[in-house]
Amino acid sequence: MPVQVVRFEHQNHVQWGVVRQGRISLIPGEYASTGDLIRHTRVGELAALPDGDLPLDTVKLLSPITRDQKFVCQGANYRQHMIESGMDPDVKNFNMIFTKATSCIVAADSELIKPRNVRFLDYEIELGLVLRRDITGPVRVTDANLHEFVAGVVIVNDYSARDIQIPQMQFYKGKSYRTFGPVGPYLCLLEAKDLPYLKKLQLRLTVNGQVRQSDSTANLVYGPAETLTELSGVQDFTAGDLIATGTPAGCALTIPSPTKQRIAVLLPEAVKWKAFMKAQEGRSSYYLKKGDVVEASIRSADGVIDLGTQRNVVVEQA
Amino acid sequence: MPVQVVRFEHQNHVQWGVVRQGRISLIPGEYASTGDLIRHTRVGELAALPDGDLPLDTVKLLSPITRDQKFVCQGANYRQHMIESGMDPDVKNFNMIFTKATSCIVAADSELIKPRNVRFLDYEIELGLVLRRDITGPVRVTDANLHEFVAGVVIVNDYSARDIQIPQMQFYKGKSYRTFGPVGPYLCLLEAKDLPYLKKLQLRLTVNGQVRQSDSTANLVYGPAETLTELSGVQDFTAGDLIATGTPAGCALTIPSPTKQRIAVLLPEAVKWKAFMKAQEGRSSYYLKKGDVVEASIRSADGVIDLGTQRNVVVEQA
Repeated sequence: MPVQVVRFEHQNHVQWGVVRQGRISLIPGEYASTGDLIRHTRVGELAALPDGDLPLDTVKLLSPITRDQKFVCQGANYRQHMIESGMDPDVKNFNMIFTKATSCIVAADSELIKPRNVRFLDYEIELGLVLRRDITGPVRVTDANLHEFVAGVVIVNDYSARDIQIPQMQFYKGKSYRTFGPVGPYLCLLEAKDLPYLKKLQLRLTVNGQVRQSDSTANLVYGPAETLTELSGVQDFTAGDLIATGTPAGCALTIPSPTKQRIAVLLPEAVKWKAFMKAQEGRSSYYLKKGDVVEASIRSADGVIDLGTQRNVVVEQA
Repeated sequence: MPVQVVRFEHQNHVQWGVVRQGRISLIPGEYASTGDLIRHTRVGELAALPDGDLPLDTVKLLSPITRDQKFVCQGANYRQHMIESGMDPDVKNFNMIFTKATSCIVAADSELIKPRNVRFLDYEIELGLVLRRDITGPVRVTDANLHEFVAGVVIVNDYSARDIQIPQMQFYKGKSYRTFGPVGPYLCLLEAKDLPYLKKLQLRLTVNGQVRQSDSTANLVYGPAETLTELSGVQDFTAGDLIATGTPAGCALTIPSPTKQRIAVLLPEAVKWKAFMKAQEGRSSYYLKKGDVVEASIRSADGVIDLGTQRNVVVEQA
């Protein structure tokens, strides 16, 4: 049975716990990082903890992924989002990978700070995979052994400053501003038999109550097994590392079709980017502004998997 | 006076030392990370260590930057390299930032493993800045206070699989393969009065003895102070983190001029990338192959700053 793990601060002490019916059962032991927790606990043991008596709403929740883990991201990994991002899904034949700075990781209910220099602030709900073990060389991951590599899942919001990310080409900076990576609230740890759920989780994001993104992980282009297989041939990972698997359609971002891009590219650079900014202005009611409330949830239709709900209020940089 | 710090393994023990006349003076204490060393030592104290008697050539040198630090990179940061990378320096008006996986960090004399799936393996000598202190919010860095933020410098080779990096658009994957980031041999720690040297270091890279890259940090587009000022407004850093400042002209990579790109982009994607691969084949004598020897050095003309020499032999993935 999946367990919902939280990391929280209570009475000036950071602790880990399992949530059941709105109350927290404390996990014995001290774990400085998500990797430490995952290495030293078993889902079955956590599920068997006695019911707790600490009400969830009396503690300050933290991100269940600590900032000493890696934060690797897949880009353009839902077909419809690829189209709205100006890519042709039928010619893309690679798994786009980039990173976010881990200092952008914050709790699921954190305020989202809109940097002063950013005009076009966008949301991206994503399923985050949390690794079970260290990877130090190429491994062949399949749906059959995926549970050996994936410990659990979390909600990630990959907030993005489109006016930095897109014209500057490399995504890192425009996606790494502080508070641009809420994670949680729950780290849902899975047993082997729960893994098939990874292909049928419902993602839903609203802004001020209006649905903007709604899709299923059934529509992921590059799935967890093939992504881990490929990345294991490139780099090392440690237990607790986070891989955000890309966002579905429905972002504020609008990019011309590949055909229009081929025409736009004939323009001088400055003219091209002016046209890009102009196009985003046409979407200004979709881009995030001060006071907007973004809510993001991921769960299975049967309720067995529930990663909770993120809630971020947009504030302006002081 | 600058000191040349090494991290090395000797008698199954990892230690830090200062190099003088080919011998190592041991630095007392245990430092698990580069940040720990920098936080707990002073350049003046290290310069005053008694002469050591451990010959440099009897130890196994390691990277002086440990893998728990960040590895942030600037792209297209020398004017001539921008042109050879297909960018117009007169229209680029941003500081391009990406990251490499820290698992690619290896010792300066490591073999460079050419992955089986990579055809176009390229070199990029770069000056690496090593941070003195943690940064947790926006700071204004100038040439006058730069010494408060930069502890020292190292050689970095930002090896790149061009056939992954360029068509996949996000640079992370094609630059993160294991062994793609030799660092060192020396971490040259600087005092405030040494900082002006950052603007006049000579970079030189040879392949099989033939000079491929030769330039001065005088030609950096975005310098250390403005780069740190900008990045401090985006993300956190900790002492010991590494920022690679970009590479000069002379790589194997060839990309059509911006004008030719504007024409190429009218082609279907598959045709465009076929043309890209064909163009690289025309540079095949420049791309790295099994047995090639890459040597990279950075020093000041007066010899006061000397970051040593990297030497990497290219081997094929087993």
